[in-house]
Amino acid sequence: MKEIPKATAKRLPLYHRYLKAFHDMGKLRISSTELSEAVKVDSATIRRDFSYFGALGKRGYGYDIEYLLEFFGKTLAQDRLQTVALIGVGNLGNALLNYNFKKSNNIRIDAAFDVNEDIIGTIHNGVPVYDMSELETQLQAMDIEVVIITVPETEVQSLAPQLEAANVKGILNFTSVRIDIDSNIHIQNVDLTNELQTLIYYIHTSNH
Amino acid sequence: MKEIPKATAKRLPLYHRYLKAFHDMGKLRISSTELSEAVKVDSATIRRDFSYFGALGKRGYGYDIEYLLEFFGKTLAQDRLQTVALIGVGNLGNALLNYNFKKSNNIRIDAAFDVNEDIIGTIHNGVPVYDMSELETQLQAMDIEVVIITVPETEVQSLAPQLEAANVKGILNFTSVRIDIDSNIHIQNVDLTNELQTLIYYIHTSNH
Repeated sequence: MKEIPKATAKRLPLYHRYLKAFHDMGKLRISSTELSEAVKVDSATIRRDFSYFGALGKRGYGYDIEYLLEFFGKTLAQDRLQTVALIGVGNLGNALLNYNFKKSNNIRIDAAFDVNEDIIGTIHNGVPVYDMSELETQLQAMDIEVVIITVPETEVQSLAPQLEAANVKGILNFTSVRIDIDSNIHIQNVDLTNELQTLIYYIHTSNH
Repeated sequence: MKEIPKATAKRLPLYHRYLKAFHDMGKLRISSTELSEAVKVDSATIRRDFSYFGALGKRGYGYDIEYLLEFFGKTLAQDRLQTVALIGVGNLGNALLNYNFKKSNNIRIDAAFDVNEDIIGTIHNGVPVYDMSELETQLQAMDIEVVIITVPETEVQSLAPQLEAANVKGILNFTSVRIDIDSNIHIQNVDLTNELQTLIYYIHTSNH
């Protein structure tokens, strides 16, 4: 499959979830207009996105939901369990342990790391907490390739050498620090303050 | 100011934060290359973004940090306090109350709403929790225009009429449901499972 744009890739899980809901309701086909109303993405964008996967809807017929679901399921690796580790069990880290991506069938936080001796060696929200000093060895022992970072900002950069040594392939970074790390490691930044500030920016500029 | 692209708007808080750090270190000017290394955005993108604000760097001189900071500060409304409300005090909602955007000087969660009688009427993580049935009246009484939604997915759509009636202007939506609501209300969707799935998608496609 050819490389698809990042914006399109970000919409894949959304399409997958809604198509699954339509499928569960017994629907066999869907038009880009119907899907557009559900997912709140304009239908031209949906058609362009789908064309990247070679899915061509037919006028007056729409897209075959089962075909799309099978394709998305494979593409999103829904068929294998993806284990991840959480680094930093503070407020946000704790919430993520609790949350533990329960909406998803194939993602699970299997290990957490922290420096707090009160929780090291315990099972926290169902997940074992290891000492931060064991990060590299434990990630390798558990064959975990994806980590979520929720440590204090001053600690982020110091994780880089250990993550590189442990052959980590992907990082979901909840801090506002941009990590300087091996460029082969994929980084997805989720900055909650940023998201809210962007929203506020839009509200104020459209008020004027 | 002309309308700037959404991707650019999302980078504004990031630029602002890093420029502030450079400013605090006593730096007066910065080149797009230096800034690029810090924020991990390529320098051509930075130059294009900055051109939207009429900020033109000079070759061999760079951008004036103080000028940019003042501009960004105003644009991001850093000078006024933005109060927000949290709807849904479950795991994620609780974490957000704890987190309360402390990194930001001008954003504060001032009210929370839930249906759980055990917490209604209490101060939770420093924030008063109101009964969900008071949503519309309380938002208006407190003049809150921005809400964060962390309710169960089945409850999301039922909030729409009350949010419209309360004249809410912006929604930060942490659920995976796309809300059907007055199109004048700005919506920023943050779907944590989506973010992780997108990351995993990239890891798997680049492995092949």
